[in-house]
Amino acid sequence: MYAVILAGGGGTRLWPLSRVARPKPFLALTGDETLLQATVARLQPLIDPADVYLVADGRYAGLVKEQLRVVPEANLVTEPVGRNTAAAVALAALSIERPSDDVMVVLPADHRITDVAGFRDALAAAAEVAADGSLVALGTEPDAPATGYGYILAQGKPRVVGGMPAFSVERFLEKPSEERARELIEGGRAHWNAGIFVWRRDALLEGLARYAPDILEALGGGLEGSDLGAAYAEVRATSIDYALLEPASLEGRVAVVPIAVGWSDLGSWAALLEALTADALAQGGSSVVGHAGDGATTIDIDSTDLLVHAAGGRLVATVGLEGLVVIDTPDALLVCAADRAQDVKRVVDRLAAEGQRDRL
Amino acid sequence: MYAVILAGGGGTRLWPLSRVARPKPFLALTGDETLLQATVARLQPLIDPADVYLVADGRYAGLVKEQLRVVPEANLVTEPVGRNTAAAVALAALSIERPSDDVMVVLPADHRITDVAGFRDALAAAAEVAADGSLVALGTEPDAPATGYGYILAQGKPRVVGGMPAFSVERFLEKPSEERARELIEGGRAHWNAGIFVWRRDALLEGLARYAPDILEALGGGLEGSDLGAAYAEVRATSIDYALLEPASLEGRVAVVPIAVGWSDLGSWAALLEALTADALAQGGSSVVGHAGDGATTIDIDSTDLLVHAAGGRLVATVGLEGLVVIDTPDALLVCAADRAQDVKRVVDRLAAEGQRDRL
Repeated sequence: MYAVILAGGGGTRLWPLSRVARPKPFLALTGDETLLQATVARLQPLIDPADVYLVADGRYAGLVKEQLRVVPEANLVTEPVGRNTAAAVALAALSIERPSDDVMVVLPADHRITDVAGFRDALAAAAEVAADGSLVALGTEPDAPATGYGYILAQGKPRVVGGMPAFSVERFLEKPSEERARELIEGGRAHWNAGIFVWRRDALLEGLARYAPDILEALGGGLEGSDLGAAYAEVRATSIDYALLEPASLEGRVAVVPIAVGWSDLGSWAALLEALTADALAQGGSSVVGHAGDGATTIDIDSTDLLVHAAGGRLVATVGLEGLVVIDTPDALLVCAADRAQDVKRVVDRLAAEGQRDRL
Repeated sequence: MYAVILAGGGGTRLWPLSRVARPKPFLALTGDETLLQATVARLQPLIDPADVYLVADGRYAGLVKEQLRVVPEANLVTEPVGRNTAAAVALAALSIERPSDDVMVVLPADHRITDVAGFRDALAAAAEVAADGSLVALGTEPDAPATGYGYILAQGKPRVVGGMPAFSVERFLEKPSEERARELIEGGRAHWNAGIFVWRRDALLEGLARYAPDILEALGGGLEGSDLGAAYAEVRATSIDYALLEPASLEGRVAVVPIAVGWSDLGSWAALLEALTADALAQGGSSVVGHAGDGATTIDIDSTDLLVHAAGGRLVATVGLEGLVVIDTPDALLVCAADRAQDVKRVVDRLAAEGQRDRL
């Protein structure tokens, strides 16, 4: 069993902390560890750091090396450029030499999970399900008709593996409308696609050959240096969900293992606010949460549902705020209503349009 | 006719822009001029800069000199320490040598007035009323039952001077309860005390001798150097309103000239937000207002009723905010709900209690 961590996401919705030079996986958003470090740490002891591989843009090799001293340097697979997850997963399948019946766990580098023991139990169960060649996804219970996630529709009765249910998947659905999301949730068979997949290496390669042969072909020319550069210039940029899991699910080859392990994709400042306040309130704390970096301090007077990330080395004082996010960095400050967190992207787009590259 | 500008206020409610080292009068909050510069400028041509005097704490002598090159250096009266307005006005009356029937205009250094011509007309009318020895206050129309202002209750029919009405004052009332304020406004005879007074120098000295003899006596020992230091250590710290105008009004010696000249005391970030948005909306602009200093830029996405003061030399991005104040400085950031602007004082109090002197 081995893990392939995809550290490719830009995380522009977490601007101004997430930057081109240090994107989301390399940030300590929820504690002292970076998201990448936490992703590796929570796999142990199920998967040893020696069996953890990373796929990342070559420009982040230095950051990976700096943050992951426990993982062998040779386990870093560098992409010449980001081309979405299908190419990254295919590259990992082809270039990491493991026995063909080894079980590969694919997971994003920038998610959060609070129940790490429960998460490892789910991975172990998923690995058992994957032993027969199934492609297995982890699915989380939807707690709102979110339109930003993919949905996995389960069918039939579950088989129970390692004390956990595993369902056959009827189909994958990309980000639905709110109305459709509501219907899906009411149906009682929908799970959010957590972007965490478990499969045998040979099953993955067979699946890619069947459903996305162009991607394997594009990478056939070579897996290193300028060959890979040329291949990546050609390869289709698409998600592994769309390239593989959607069509495979229609042929009954996909299973889902539901998880309830405090998962969040931390996909926006609002998601981080929600995750951190849920923790704080559960521990009897206040709903004013966040982190003060070196030289920074915070003072709050009577706010609620407030995330303050003080990374600007300054005092951040907040008074009477509600449902807000304050992200302070040395060269840029963001103050954003939590329910408008998706629009942080518009700020980044405007900076890009204005050519303000050093603030991206 | 001469002016005495009181530049003593700390303006802690405008933290973190207003600091001990550079308090409110010395800040450019509403345009390119500082509040002090604007206060001097709007008196012309009614009162020439040569006839403008300042009373300020000695530690601000450098700032005054730097900002007011038009005013003769000799016109600065320095206090050894701030002891509220009664002592400052008495010091000005005693130490500035002018003919005893000259009319003195006393005004704060940190207010805002949009209709400057109307304001000068009101001062000229007030000077005419003051010619008979009356103590004259300017009063603004209350537009809400504010509890932070003093109220002036007019009585009887006005005399008309220079086209403007002037009323006899029945009494002064210090900051009332909201209920009382509502009653006062409904009565139709109440004005807010703008802290701007017009009187003959001899009438002022007579009034002080009658109603606050202890203050004149305390200053009798000497008006300079260590004598003044000793006097100021003894003098009662009270407002000129309380020491002089309240008791004088009860003996029918005070008049009020109503003004409607876009006055604001800029007493809090909420007051500044209100003043600037009113201007902007009147000019067809948006209700996102503020100022970006050197090296600073701002980006806003869909906010309303927002004041952004970007003085930290950085980018300030705001998304979906409403009724908020964002004040960015190099070493401290404030994000405050406009309706909680009074509580900025609590932040300052906490910093003081923690001994964070360089952030005060």
